[in-house]
Amino acid sequence: MHIDAIVDDLLCRRDEILERLCAFLRIPSVSTDPAFIGGMRDARTFLVDWIERMGLSDVQLLDGGGHPAVYGAWNGAPGKPTLLVYGHYDVQPPEPLDAWVTPPFEPTIRDGRLYARGASDVKGSTAIALETIAAFLKVRNACPVNVKVFLEGEEETNSPSLRAIVERYGDLLQADGMISADGARAHPEIPTINVASRGIVEFEFSVRTADKDLHSGRYGGAVRNATHEMARIIASLHDEQGAIAIPGFLSSLPSVSVEARTETAKFLFDGVAFVKDVGAQTHGEPGFSVREQLTLRPALDVNGMWGGHTGLGYKTVIPSTAHAKLSLRTVPGQDPDRVSDALKVHLRTVCPPDVELSIDDPETGSCAFELPAGHPLVLAAKKVLHEATGREPVLVRLGASIPITAIFQELLGVRTLMFGFGLPDEDIHAPNEFFRLSSLEEGLSAWPRLLEQVGELSADEFQSIVANEQ
Amino acid sequence: MHIDAIVDDLLCRRDEILERLCAFLRIPSVSTDPAFIGGMRDARTFLVDWIERMGLSDVQLLDGGGHPAVYGAWNGAPGKPTLLVYGHYDVQPPEPLDAWVTPPFEPTIRDGRLYARGASDVKGSTAIALETIAAFLKVRNACPVNVKVFLEGEEETNSPSLRAIVERYGDLLQADGMISADGARAHPEIPTINVASRGIVEFEFSVRTADKDLHSGRYGGAVRNATHEMARIIASLHDEQGAIAIPGFLSSLPSVSVEARTETAKFLFDGVAFVKDVGAQTHGEPGFSVREQLTLRPALDVNGMWGGHTGLGYKTVIPSTAHAKLSLRTVPGQDPDRVSDALKVHLRTVCPPDVELSIDDPETGSCAFELPAGHPLVLAAKKVLHEATGREPVLVRLGASIPITAIFQELLGVRTLMFGFGLPDEDIHAPNEFFRLSSLEEGLSAWPRLLEQVGELSADEFQSIVANEQ
Repeated sequence: MHIDAIVDDLLCRRDEILERLCAFLRIPSVSTDPAFIGGMRDARTFLVDWIERMGLSDVQLLDGGGHPAVYGAWNGAPGKPTLLVYGHYDVQPPEPLDAWVTPPFEPTIRDGRLYARGASDVKGSTAIALETIAAFLKVRNACPVNVKVFLEGEEETNSPSLRAIVERYGDLLQADGMISADGARAHPEIPTINVASRGIVEFEFSVRTADKDLHSGRYGGAVRNATHEMARIIASLHDEQGAIAIPGFLSSLPSVSVEARTETAKFLFDGVAFVKDVGAQTHGEPGFSVREQLTLRPALDVNGMWGGHTGLGYKTVIPSTAHAKLSLRTVPGQDPDRVSDALKVHLRTVCPPDVELSIDDPETGSCAFELPAGHPLVLAAKKVLHEATGREPVLVRLGASIPITAIFQELLGVRTLMFGFGLPDEDIHAPNEFFRLSSLEEGLSAWPRLLEQVGELSADEFQSIVANEQ
Repeated sequence: MHIDAIVDDLLCRRDEILERLCAFLRIPSVSTDPAFIGGMRDARTFLVDWIERMGLSDVQLLDGGGHPAVYGAWNGAPGKPTLLVYGHYDVQPPEPLDAWVTPPFEPTIRDGRLYARGASDVKGSTAIALETIAAFLKVRNACPVNVKVFLEGEEETNSPSLRAIVERYGDLLQADGMISADGARAHPEIPTINVASRGIVEFEFSVRTADKDLHSGRYGGAVRNATHEMARIIASLHDEQGAIAIPGFLSSLPSVSVEARTETAKFLFDGVAFVKDVGAQTHGEPGFSVREQLTLRPALDVNGMWGGHTGLGYKTVIPSTAHAKLSLRTVPGQDPDRVSDALKVHLRTVCPPDVELSIDDPETGSCAFELPAGHPLVLAAKKVLHEATGREPVLVRLGASIPITAIFQELLGVRTLMFGFGLPDEDIHAPNEFFRLSSLEEGLSAWPRLLEQVGELSADEFQSIVANEQ
């Protein structure tokens, strides 16, 4: 049976599908807020019931100590690749409530847009993935590949127990690759495939210059001031143009390939307009375009700094401590531990010996991620998107970090293709989040074709291409 | 009648005097906390009643819109100088209460020390001044000089309405000079006379680099970060040795006189031990001793800085704004408006043109103060302290700022001699504040002799010496 029959089936049932998505969106599954623990449970019940009914087996909750993930598998395609299908059922808090035109958990269609918390991030695309599997099983009684559905409940809280889950259920989660319903499209017209994300290293550090804050009338002029010392340290991190100025840091980076720069240039992106749109000015490493600075080059930012009296009015204090939170967005090829160490060595070098420097161990972090251009999931996505749009898809890189992709790659060796259908303007994490009904149809057309395309390979062929591309 | 008779009378009545001081200390006159408004009123009633009974006339409350000052005068020495006698009846909040060995408003004597909030700062020395006047009026029925008692109620809240009071009651407050019961002694053995204090200029400034905080995954590497810009600005204020590095700032200062340096060197002061005692290291303008850095040279300090995420955990934000509070301790000869302008010019110069800089107008400030070495109040104090101790008093300068002295000088042309009897270790503003009973006796011996000494001059002679020393 031709793949068009699956797509036709899905598009004919779009009202039923939309109704099921609305039922999913009515469940207030806010993972950050204990008040919504019932909504989280209801969302799991909804998903367990749904994937059981569509014919997945081994349906269960995978518990890592937090909100469990929902799991179900279909293993009826022996010899074919096995794909993890990732989505998440938790959503951001809906506040501020009074900014919503219609209530966040009452999905409403206006002008071809479905408004609800989680519509774009990421229940809409998660529904596309699940409906696709259901349609294969309903129409063909078989999927083109083996699938392992993995629906996380803590994506919006930085996945605190994801690592524990993947470690604990590592055998169950073995797969040849992962397709994620998360990871939105980059452009409304240009088809894009996300092939990389930056990693992140974060830590906090403090300087101390005295046992206690000192009165500036009593000590001013003769002692160090912790805010001055912190300022000198922070000022040492970049040069005047905005390039990272830590000695040896940039020169030790893997050089950027011509291919990566060429591919990046294909994505039409007005860097100046992009930063002007938020009232900023371009400022960064010379010799790279804004898009390259954002995706191919690391970024070192102080995310917060503070010291002394920060309340109202004046207090003539010489602060004895000052603090900063620092984050580094890393690029593929940078080892998080090594760059973290290099940063710390720099801090210790620039901090005067009579100033006490303390550095907190990084609490969070994830590796940069890269999907080779020849990876079978990229090749399959390229073909599907090209056929669907008539345009050659552009491989794009994200400036952000996707801890999930890094965790699955690190623990299971599984690489992820992001194939979500959200668009950048859909106000995720904000009031009046929406998902385009046209995106729903585009996704319901593309996902079956993607699975079908991957299913043209045997598992061995899939792995052999992967191995060649490493 | 010889002045010894006045001192003898005071020392014989030390129990009565101590009992009256304890009654004063039992009144919880905390000016910062509206919960103590009753205590503030009780303290005024106590003082009004006391100075009326001792024979002052024209007793009244001087209202400037906040806690009023208590005023009373004795004008029975025509042709003699008229001196304002300054004290304050408000005290610091007593918190943390559980750190007190005995309750803050239950004065208790242990080991020759009187423990209570306000004992050292400054009810003890205020009582010395008032008891002195009372003794003159009781024993001699006359003071050696005309006195105008001025007891402030807002010293611990930075004297918000003092300027209004002095402006409103300017005629009433005309005097040849002022002796302040505030302004403690600098050393337990070496007799010292405070002849200068630094001024202060304070303002807050902010930088803005974008309309809103930006996500570092989305913008990191291509835009300015407000905390980085603030750090560069703050780092530009000083050189590596800690000297103010604003171009032209130090070179435009009036040069430090040999006399001032010589006098400063006379005060035995171990600068290294002084800063080591609070866990700090010496750091400041080269070519000056610690004591000189603290008193003869200006000090520029960031009192607080902040920007971005300063709470728990990590937030990958590129802060769009950062803020700092800045204070400059000025020295005599520096015009606050001009140095404030010079600071602002520097900030505007170092801030890149595409970063928005906003500077708040200074809200508070006071001029540096200097009492010439030949001022009649200094000469009188020198003589009295030399006779009392057998040692030559050392003229010392304060690093702190005394807004009161600056306001009286600016508005009335009245200079102030600080003649308080507190000592530096008496835990003012902290739990277990105390005042030495020996200091009470030393003060009761010195204050009458000081007034007597000043009374040897006519008002005209006093003013003629003042004029020669300007």
